[in-house]
Amino acid sequence: MIFVGIDVGGTSSRCVAVDTAGKVLARGGGPGSNVHRHGIPEAAQRAVTLVRRTLAGAGSADGPVHAAVCTAGLDTEETARTFAAVLRDLAPEVVWRLENDAVAAWKGAFGAGESGVVAICGTGAVAFARHDGRQARAGGWGAALGDEGSGYDMGRRALLALLRHQDGMGPATSLREPVLNHLGLSRTESIIDHVHFHMQPSHVAALAPLVLGQAGEGDEVAVSVVDGVARSLAGMVAAAARTVRGNEEREIPFSLAGGVSGDEYFAGRVRRHCADPALLTPWHRPEAPPVVGAVYLAMEAAGTFSAVDLTQDHVDRYQTCN
Amino acid sequence: MIFVGIDVGGTSSRCVAVDTAGKVLARGGGPGSNVHRHGIPEAAQRAVTLVRRTLAGAGSADGPVHAAVCTAGLDTEETARTFAAVLRDLAPEVVWRLENDAVAAWKGAFGAGESGVVAICGTGAVAFARHDGRQARAGGWGAALGDEGSGYDMGRRALLALLRHQDGMGPATSLREPVLNHLGLSRTESIIDHVHFHMQPSHVAALAPLVLGQAGEGDEVAVSVVDGVARSLAGMVAAAARTVRGNEEREIPFSLAGGVSGDEYFAGRVRRHCADPALLTPWHRPEAPPVVGAVYLAMEAAGTFSAVDLTQDHVDRYQTCN
Repeated sequence: MIFVGIDVGGTSSRCVAVDTAGKVLARGGGPGSNVHRHGIPEAAQRAVTLVRRTLAGAGSADGPVHAAVCTAGLDTEETARTFAAVLRDLAPEVVWRLENDAVAAWKGAFGAGESGVVAICGTGAVAFARHDGRQARAGGWGAALGDEGSGYDMGRRALLALLRHQDGMGPATSLREPVLNHLGLSRTESIIDHVHFHMQPSHVAALAPLVLGQAGEGDEVAVSVVDGVARSLAGMVAAAARTVRGNEEREIPFSLAGGVSGDEYFAGRVRRHCADPALLTPWHRPEAPPVVGAVYLAMEAAGTFSAVDLTQDHVDRYQTCN
Repeated sequence: MIFVGIDVGGTSSRCVAVDTAGKVLARGGGPGSNVHRHGIPEAAQRAVTLVRRTLAGAGSADGPVHAAVCTAGLDTEETARTFAAVLRDLAPEVVWRLENDAVAAWKGAFGAGESGVVAICGTGAVAFARHDGRQARAGGWGAALGDEGSGYDMGRRALLALLRHQDGMGPATSLREPVLNHLGLSRTESIIDHVHFHMQPSHVAALAPLVLGQAGEGDEVAVSVVDGVARSLAGMVAAAARTVRGNEEREIPFSLAGGVSGDEYFAGRVRRHCADPALLTPWHRPEAPPVVGAVYLAMEAAGTFSAVDLTQDHVDRYQTCN
């Protein structure tokens, strides 16, 4: 058997194929996808292409292929059912499992654990908690609703800060030059046309590294943008933990995933907002990246995933897939 | 000569044709338009169709037609130039003037006045000020950037409030039932798919009357949504006034336009936020609606607009165009 994990992000996607022993056979990467923006048929086609290209790199391997596609924007049963049917149509030779990307991030972060909250901050953002058989999510509302706590949110807030200053509603910021340079614009007011005519949410999220850079340099507007996003993400962690915990007072560890969370400065701000002892959410270093979580989900679906798979050596090899 | 004013909103457009004496020859209405969403060719086509249909209803009239198209999202010289060229191509028999819709709202609100700020709150929002030969705008950043202070902003905040409650991040609200009914949904979580798959910004803005209704009934979440939007709009008024006033301490009257501003409860909240004596922005009842402001702009372009056109009788007749 081959197990394939696919972590579909808003900006890029990652894929890992392993054999029954957990040996990594091949890795692949491709463009991101979003059900809401690209539609189900296109999103499914991209997943299938990525899996087939990765498997082609895996050489010959025996037995059926179990693949878990973990993607953002999978919010309703109906969408998931339609998506799964299209995947089966496009590639009936694969046994498909379909999940929200938050589930892959959880599985990667906590592995065989039973209690935890993971918050993803990449192009989009979502928090997902499991505890005592219950599960809950918070946020993950997509770009059209502002996607608070995400890289998109960070980029959007930065653009708004430039426009606010331009219109006399906010302070100057050293974000102006790097952001305008990045967009190839010479005037702040051109941002409005540029955003509406040329920028997808992933392009807005691509501004996040610039914002983090200026925040690191001490620009007050950038610091406030980063802190606002970190606070939103921490709010989602707290809400998801509260929902699964109910009236219990047991600790639920929290972890982070996603491209923006990979930034140490940002992760530090989120951890600071979650450090309130009343929240009972101690920091948990993620065991493996979401794409490995997706591999675990494919194994689980085939009935072969167990704590045994999570030896440290195993995890170390997976880590390089991030 | 015939003067035609076209006020293009995000949800609907209005058109009025008058003769040289200012007598209303015909009125028309049509779908809204937005340069950013529909593109320049479609936006120009909609304006031409509306003007031709309105003129057909005006019967025979002599002389050239001067038309002022006033539309949101006209943010750069380049876009305005392209748009004007397409209008001339499509209908060379008309003398076209192209303006941001904020200018028509200003002209309607202040007529022959020389100093004032107008804030529009319809599908979108923008503030525009003129004072002592200077002019400035604030806001008007479009749906992709959240369009703070607008009907879209009001609808979006309402949807977020439902999702926040659903995810354990905010209080319950009586908005839930009317909003879900309006959208034809039975579950709060279906909002995410619905917004991304089916809702244009104008559909989100169409939730504003529901929000205003629940705020009027005292629902705390709705009150806070309405107040947040009103505060944003007042902030835009203050910024535009500050920019044109510089270091002067002269009063600059402010006025409101746009569908949402027509709601007395909302207008009252905005006026309250602008009532700070330090802002020096006393309330000014608008003299005529934006579509009449657009007629004035068409007259002005033809060199025939003067304070003489603004007799009270004249204005009263125009008022019914709102």
